[in-house]
Amino acid sequence: MLRKTVDPFTCLKETIQILARPGALLVTMGKREVPNVMAIGWGSVGIVWGKPVFVVLVRPSRYSFTLLKERGQFTVNLPSPELSEVVAYCGSVSGREHDKFRETRLTPEAAETVAVPVIEECRLTYECQVIATVDLLPEGLAPEVKSACYARGDFHRVYYGEILRVTADPDFLSGMAR
Amino acid sequence: MLRKTVDPFTCLKETIQILARPGALLVTMGKREVPNVMAIGWGSVGIVWGKPVFVVLVRPSRYSFTLLKERGQFTVNLPSPELSEVVAYCGSVSGREHDKFRETRLTPEAAETVAVPVIEECRLTYECQVIATVDLLPEGLAPEVKSACYARGDFHRVYYGEILRVTADPDFLSGMAR
Repeated sequence: MLRKTVDPFTCLKETIQILARPGALLVTMGKREVPNVMAIGWGSVGIVWGKPVFVVLVRPSRYSFTLLKERGQFTVNLPSPELSEVVAYCGSVSGREHDKFRETRLTPEAAETVAVPVIEECRLTYECQVIATVDLLPEGLAPEVKSACYARGDFHRVYYGEILRVTADPDFLSGMAR
Repeated sequence: MLRKTVDPFTCLKETIQILARPGALLVTMGKREVPNVMAIGWGSVGIVWGKPVFVVLVRPSRYSFTLLKERGQFTVNLPSPELSEVVAYCGSVSGREHDKFRETRLTPEAAETVAVPVIEECRLTYECQVIATVDLLPEGLAPEVKSACYARGDFHRVYYGEILRVTADPDFLSGMAR
């Protein structure tokens, strides 16, 4: 699939819609140079410090957390609906025990601005450099958020990724006009 | 202007574009029940904890910070291009010394889901309830972010506002189809 580079905010609505269902794929890669892929359903996109940012949340227990510590870069990849089972699988096992790229037959493709790859099979990709992190603390959370999402602690770290490049499948872009 | 209620993510791209230029208007209101308006150029929109969120950043030195502490609600209001001077004025003086609604002749209009008003003259409004806050810390920031934006400290508090209602001017919505 030959994607083309587009403006960071071209597909904002579609990004949030896919994030909600079936989810997006967060790719990270540590010192070992083996990329890992994790399913995410939460995140936000906007402008902070005058820069376009993709903000993702990762819990300390996750393998991606370790990899993000080793290399502060990530890519967010938006799958087509046909990949929803792959997304579900990526959300069900840990990269500590599984080479999810191999198992799902997703293809890592070299990104242009970061060392972490994007996913060839995805229709929209964000290449991001972490420029800030902040850890959520229990005292900052509404009681209903705390009880629904943090019964076992493991409070998320928030990663602000400066969006350095976005690529989109031309078919996806033309479908947006509908 | 009679706005209609729309889906939280209907005008995402337009929201980020207006946030970038000329900026959006953040309305808060403390115990004194006098609304204040502040110009913002940074923020993000997405899904966190399964909820639609508008994330804004406010420095502790700001009057809006005090008001947000008193009442954890805010509205984000997207102005038309004709209001860009008003946005600039709202960004240049403090609500501690100025009643910016009166001075700018902006009209506070009752919101439906929060006690804080929206702005009648704005074409798109987000009504938000704060469900989480987290304070940025110097150790979490890239050196270039720290030097560019925090030379005098005053690190932002990040407010996650659950989006409870979005209203849009029908003319603005039809203009989006272009």
